[in-house]
Formats: sequence, C-alpha cells, structure tokens
Amino acid sequence: MHVLVTGGAGFIGSHLCDRLVQRGDKVWCVDNLYLGQRRNIAHLEANPAFRFIEGDVLDRPVLEALFADGRFEAVFHLAANSDIAAGNADAELDLRLNQLTTLEVLEAMRRHGVKRLFFASTSAIFGEASGDLHEDFGPLQPISFYGASKLGAEGYTSVYANQHAIRTVILRFPNVIGERSTHGVIFDFLRKLKANPNELEVLGDGNQQKPYLYVGDLVDAILVAWDKADAPFSVFHASGIDSTSVREIAEIVVAAAGRPDTRLRFTGGDRGWPGDVPKFSYDISRLKALGWQPRRHSTDAVRFAVERILANGF
Amino acid sequence: MHVLVTGGAGFIGSHLCDRLVQRGDKVWCVDNLYLGQRRNIAHLEANPAFRFIEGDVLDRPVLEALFADGRFEAVFHLAANSDIAAGNADAELDLRLNQLTTLEVLEAMRRHGVKRLFFASTSAIFGEASGDLHEDFGPLQPISFYGASKLGAEGYTSVYANQHAIRTVILRFPNVIGERSTHGVIFDFLRKLKANPNELEVLGDGNQQKPYLYVGDLVDAILVAWDKADAPFSVFHASGIDSTSVREIAEIVVAAAGRPDTRLRFTGGDRGWPGDVPKFSYDISRLKALGWQPRRHSTDAVRFAVERILANGF
Repeated sequence: MHVLVTGGAGFIGSHLCDRLVQRGDKVWCVDNLYLGQRRNIAHLEANPAFRFIEGDVLDRPVLEALFADGRFEAVFHLAANSDIAAGNADAELDLRLNQLTTLEVLEAMRRHGVKRLFFASTSAIFGEASGDLHEDFGPLQPISFYGASKLGAEGYTSVYANQHAIRTVILRFPNVIGERSTHGVIFDFLRKLKANPNELEVLGDGNQQKPYLYVGDLVDAILVAWDKADAPFSVFHASGIDSTSVREIAEIVVAAAGRPDTRLRFTGGDRGWPGDVPKFSYDISRLKALGWQPRRHSTDAVRFAVERILANGF
Repeated sequence: MHVLVTGGAGFIGSHLCDRLVQRGDKVWCVDNLYLGQRRNIAHLEANPAFRFIEGDVLDRPVLEALFADGRFEAVFHLAANSDIAAGNADAELDLRLNQLTTLEVLEAMRRHGVKRLFFASTSAIFGEASGDLHEDFGPLQPISFYGASKLGAEGYTSVYANQHAIRTVILRFPNVIGERSTHGVIFDFLRKLKANPNELEVLGDGNQQKPYLYVGDLVDAILVAWDKADAPFSVFHASGIDSTSVREIAEIVVAAAGRPDTRLRFTGGDRGWPGDVPKFSYDISRLKALGWQPRRHSTDAVRFAVERILANGF
C-alpha cells in the first residue's frame, strides 16, 4: 500500500513510519518539523520504500503537489500540535494545527480520490467525563483547545466519510510515552532533572492518575484498528492497563536517572495546568475484540519508556 | 441586563432581539448583514433600549471596540451561516462563520470579563443518529459542514466555560420556521412557486420527516433555558411536537399560496441534498422540566409559519 503519513517525523508518526515500512508499505512522510525531528526518521531515509518531504500541510500548493506526485492509497493524518499545555497559550494554534490541517488533508483526499483515512484523535475530547469511557460516550465537553480542536476535526472526518465515501478509522490516543517524545510528563521531568538534579518540581499534587501506553503498543493498536475495522467510519479507544500517578512517575524517573535522593517539590492543586484532565479511564473492549491489548501495565510501561528514552540519548 | 446579540438582524436573532427588548433588556445587535437584513430590526431602531451595529465579528478591531464600548453582561451568539446546503459548497465557509466567529466572541468575552454566554447550536451535530436524541447522546458524527463546525464551536464554548468561568447555555436548534427566514424548505417552496406557479419542485422523495418549531416558540425556549439553567455549562434540546413530511409542507404551501392545483414534482432520493438529515427526533424532557413546551404541533406550526411569512410580505 502506498501511504502518506502526515506528521511522520514526530514522536508517534515516526514510530508508525517504522512499522509501515517494516510491514512492506511504501511510505511518504510529510512533516514541517515544528515538533517533528529529522533524527526520528534519519534511519529510514536510505530505504527506497520511504521518502521524507519537509513541508506544511497547511501550505496548499505543497499539499496539492504532494498528492499529485504520490497517488496515495491511504493517508495517516497525525500532524498536529500535540502539546496540550502549549496549545492553551494561543487560542488559534490548535485550531490551525489540529483542525485546519485535517480539513486541508480531507479536501486534498477528496480532490485526488484517496479513499482511506486514519485520523489520530484524543481522549481530550471527553474533558473531565468520568467512568470507563467507551467510543460512543456523550456528552463531549473538552476543557482544552487541544480537545476542542480534535473534536471539531473528528466532525469533519465524519462529513467526508459520509459525503465522499472516505473510509475512516479514528483512534483516540491516550497518554502515550516512549522514545522520541517531545513533551509530556516524563520528558518534562528528565529535562528539569538535567537542569537541577537536587530538586524536581512536580506540577499539581502528584495524584493525577492516568493509564500510560508505550508507543509500540499504540502503533500496534493503530494497525489492528486499520486492518480489522469493518465499518465505513470506525472509532476506537486504546489505553494502558490500570493507571499510574504523577508521583509514581517522578519516583521512577529519579531512580532511573540515578538520582534517587532528588527531592520532589509539588506545586499543588489537582492538575498540572489549566486544561489538564487529572483522571481518566477508557473502555477498550472494542479494540480488544479485534485482538489488540497492551503488552504492559501502565506503570511497567512508564519504566520501559523511561529506559528507552534514556537509551535513545536524552 | 445589557446584552450583545450577534447575528441579531438575522431570522432567529431579530426575533430574539424583539423579545429581549420587550422584557426590558438593553440590547446591542451586531450583524454583518450577510444573511441578516436591516428590515428585520428596523422597527427596533428608534427604541433607546436597542442599538444596531453593522459589523463582522471576525473583524477583530470592530469586535474589540464593540466590547470596550458595550460593557456587556452577556452575549447571545447567534451569528452563523445557517444555510446548511450553501455551507456544503465551500469547505471553509462554515468553519469561518460558525466556528471561528465563536472563538472570536469567546476571546473577546475573556478579554473583557463577560461571564455569560448563550450559544446557538444545532441538531446537525448528531448526523444521522436515530431515536429520541437527548442532550448527552453520543457518538456525534455530523454529515454536514454546518454540523461539524457547530460541534467544534460547542467544544470551544466548553473550554472557555471551564477555564474562564464563562457561564454557558447552549440550545441546539431544531428546524425553525417563521417570518424573516432567509432559507429553508418553506422559503424555498414560496420562492419557486413565485417563479413557476404551475409546478413545484420538491427536493428528495418528499418523505423526509422532521419536527418543525415556530420561531416564537424557539425564542421562548432560549429564554426559559437562559433564565432557569442552574449549571455552569448547560445544554438543551427544543423541538416541535411530532413531525411533518416535506410532502405535507409542499401541500400546505401551495394551498396557502392559493395554488392548490400546482403539480408537485419530486426529484427523488431519501434526502434534499448531501448533508441533509432526512429524519430526526429530539428528547426535549430536560427543557420541559424547566417549564417550556412548544405551543403548536409540528404541522400546525408549519401552517402558522406559512401564514406569517405571507403576511410579512414574501
């Protein structure tokens, strides 16, 4: 299959490119290197099954030329501002990078007759809803621009699926961790620890509790959903098993960094920043029924991710 | 209360301005006259409690000056492209006019500390979901740009409610009919009948079946929701009782226009246009519990609306 991966030099995008190339697909990767990094896909660039195009999917002539050249059979649209805290500082950033990119990609697919889409959505569309959230849960009341923009983007994918028969698979990503990440709690802790090994500032009271999923397991989930979804428009949830508190993550990070005596200083409050959802849990039975499940419990995934990040050279 | 009504010269906006002025509020109405018409609010312009400002809420300096001058206590945000069929012809129109206007209004409210919002949403966010749809129903899979852009806009109101304590009431409008409408099935039939009194083209097979609500009843619903909602973020559904087929509407219109012998010609298919939702039904128990209910059954509302439109001078 000849596919386009948008945001393919990013954290999750680059892991997806790895796996698609491994399984024999021909992969073109477009990335504006806003969050993505060339080093994430450097090892793929000599492979004839892979091609990197530096470009912005909001640049319409670039996107048009890409689709004209590529004659793709499918698009995996992962390009986004995935940094929720950063997005909240600017009301238009996520609207442009998350929602408008999606509309531009959908329009290009329509113009060029590309009929299969994977879209990376997020648990943030649910806001502070509690309980084990299944895919059809409502109401959807996001509390971050990230969540609102991805909700709007999901809406647009639904329109194109209906009106232009673009077969669509959506996976609503949970908290994903692993090497090549550019932000998030582990990244943040490692960065702070480098600056000051004696004290680690922890945003919130440390009791924020979420299921963490290692990026390799997430890519498995993407591909299981992609291969096995049997409806014209399918939505799936994936997440880690159980959950891990931010306090536990801090302890794992200081231990792994060889600084077990680092003092943890909590900023207090029930969340890390405005728009942070302190607790959440997914019902993942739909994807489990297709044969997927995470290989590690959440806290083991955190340990593994920290190891991999350090091994990758932080 | 000093309020701003965006889109206040439009079909529903102008009826809302009438009622707010009647009940003693001080009303400023902003409208770019894209769909709105000066004649809809002409009768209010001499009233010292009312002020019309011709302007576009996407024009940031205009909006900024308006909020600085107005010192509003609340905003009723109705400005939108409400013509679903027209919106579907241009992928960006509804994104700009429905979603970006909402974000601009929310940002202005945040900057100026305005803490109460009414937002006009729509049944179109549900796409083709069936059953009696209550306010918390999921999944939300719109099939029109109108629905997708309003879904995205709802998401943004939820973010501002959460992060900036903007107390928000959303009413998801159903099919609303009455004098001053600028499109919709009755308007469309009357326009066609004027052009050709011998034959009336009916889009679809005529079996599309929806509950219609007279605009006066909708404005009642807005004000009941506004006055009685007791949560920081409240969503309500309002609709007519029972439903009316497009065929029945055509028969009512030709009879009321004094052309009962007009031949009806159906274009066929289960819907009027791509993105049209042929059948839908709301659960309105939440708003009923606050004391609202429509005064007319759907088909009576259609008859009444046709009379009022003709009396208003079509």
